[in-house]
Amino acid sequence: MDEFELIQRYFSRPAAKAVLGGGDDCAVLQTAPGMQLAISTDMLVAGRHFFPDVDPQALGHKALAVNLSDLAACGARPLAFTLALALPQAQAEWLEPFAAGLLALADAHGCELIGGDTTRGPLNLCITVFGEVPGDASAPTRTQALLRSGAQAGDDVYVSGTLGEAALGLQHQLGRLQLDPAVAAACRARLERPTPRVALGLALRGVASACADVSDGLLGDLGHILARSGVGAQVDYAAIRATCPWADSGIDAQRLADCVLHGGDDYELVFTAPPQRAGAVAAAAQSSGTPVRRIGCIQAQAGLRLLDAQGRPTESPARGFNHFATAQAAELAL
Amino acid sequence: MDEFELIQRYFSRPAAKAVLGGGDDCAVLQTAPGMQLAISTDMLVAGRHFFPDVDPQALGHKALAVNLSDLAACGARPLAFTLALALPQAQAEWLEPFAAGLLALADAHGCELIGGDTTRGPLNLCITVFGEVPGDASAPTRTQALLRSGAQAGDDVYVSGTLGEAALGLQHQLGRLQLDPAVAAACRARLERPTPRVALGLALRGVASACADVSDGLLGDLGHILARSGVGAQVDYAAIRATCPWADSGIDAQRLADCVLHGGDDYELVFTAPPQRAGAVAAAAQSSGTPVRRIGCIQAQAGLRLLDAQGRPTESPARGFNHFATAQAAELAL
Repeated sequence: MDEFELIQRYFSRPAAKAVLGGGDDCAVLQTAPGMQLAISTDMLVAGRHFFPDVDPQALGHKALAVNLSDLAACGARPLAFTLALALPQAQAEWLEPFAAGLLALADAHGCELIGGDTTRGPLNLCITVFGEVPGDASAPTRTQALLRSGAQAGDDVYVSGTLGEAALGLQHQLGRLQLDPAVAAACRARLERPTPRVALGLALRGVASACADVSDGLLGDLGHILARSGVGAQVDYAAIRATCPWADSGIDAQRLADCVLHGGDDYELVFTAPPQRAGAVAAAAQSSGTPVRRIGCIQAQAGLRLLDAQGRPTESPARGFNHFATAQAAELAL
Repeated sequence: MDEFELIQRYFSRPAAKAVLGGGDDCAVLQTAPGMQLAISTDMLVAGRHFFPDVDPQALGHKALAVNLSDLAACGARPLAFTLALALPQAQAEWLEPFAAGLLALADAHGCELIGGDTTRGPLNLCITVFGEVPGDASAPTRTQALLRSGAQAGDDVYVSGTLGEAALGLQHQLGRLQLDPAVAAACRARLERPTPRVALGLALRGVASACADVSDGLLGDLGHILARSGVGAQVDYAAIRATCPWADSGIDAQRLADCVLHGGDDYELVFTAPPQRAGAVAAAAQSSGTPVRRIGCIQAQAGLRLLDAQGRPTESPARGFNHFATAQAAELAL
């Protein structure tokens, strides 16, 4: 049973109070006419999502970053978060830098730590983050949040920033890949201190037709948009590859493709918009200071079609990342 | 460093957006004029908060119950919750009863599961729960939530329901105490399936001057009210002991006193109200179908004074429960 089956089988209920329940990056709760709360929760486990000896400051940053990235994917403005923390022991030399990394990112986004729980146990972090999205006072069940379900045939597919660096950094750290020291440092920084694309998500409200964050790999996360929207897509590997700053630095082509297409932990946004909104997408990219690249288009036919570097159709094993699917994933996960 | 120091030292910031930040059972977020969201998060770790082989249905119940109890302590109406779950493996024979126990309690309180995260790892549950409390549109920084800080000298101190059963059940399960089978079964049920006092919390809005839930032991949790309110109290052991249905069943007097005064996991409410509201307290107890007993009074002089079963002043080691304080606590904690 994989993670999605698990949720679907045991924990899915028809939404009643929530404008938006499971299946998107955030839940949205109608708290009052005209205002909605976007809520997301993520749990990070030592040895699975991070190395047990990771720099605690980087861990503090990342724990919040992955949650802010969920808000970004919904176009929500960060408001506040709660932190639950299980620790083998309370050590100042660990807690101090952890809190510093966490709160520096929180402060940068005006996101307030409003509650928490600490307990003794194997190292485990659980953050729940709250962001606001304008609602519609006259139609309380509608939301201005970016959803995964709005992509339509003919829309362009875009991705922000760079892909594959986090996965390259992980492969290097696991000793499966040898990177130049400068490349390794850049990739490791990306792995350990991802940048949630909050400003871009806000700028895409009313522009993007669908949006998700790239936490589990580009093809997997785009696949979620396709599934929720009931559409397919054609994407262009040459454009995707070009997002990676190290694409031409001599990395094995297959390894590079794996990292760029399937690598997790990039925390970029993958989104869709109608061609006539291309100017608005460019404006959103510019106003938020975030590079954005068109990588393909949405098609009515279900499925994901990948064109290779030469523009030829190719088999794309839509691998994605799945927490319960494979033993290998348990090693790979960061 | 204990849990409170840990939070105070590393994670406390002045509240900005939150009407109410750390230090109470729930944070309260002003989401719109006149409506506030109460939010609480709790993490339960296998081997610490529950036995690894606990009945998963009971665990599902309890994981949500302890969070609903935090809402009850704030007088908030349950709205929704998120669940993050780390599991060594995804097993239907575990997940099915777990979800059944969780969702039955959720349904009973109209509390909707709106999001979550699952991952592989040592068994760990983190629930964040949301409840609503009326605010005051004309004074957005005020809340109708029950707080810990409102107790005043002269107020009566009350406790709901029964105390000590959960701790007796735990002691029995640990083989430290021999209970009659019928008593053991009742105590174990209380330990594994606590009843959050949501209806009482709602009924106490506008009646109680301060409130907390008894999760870490009566004296410890009352101590939080005293500290936050800047007052002291005198409590009467005879009245406290009388809340325990098994007080006269031959249990060792010292062991009984420990369980009743310091036992965690009762999830009753301890609260204060002015003497002139005694009728309103009785009405709240009746309308919510929850027994309530007066156990003492608030005094201006700081500190907690315990009268023994004969009404004489006694030394009361205000032990309470602290997740990082002692190795013994790690064994005791449920």
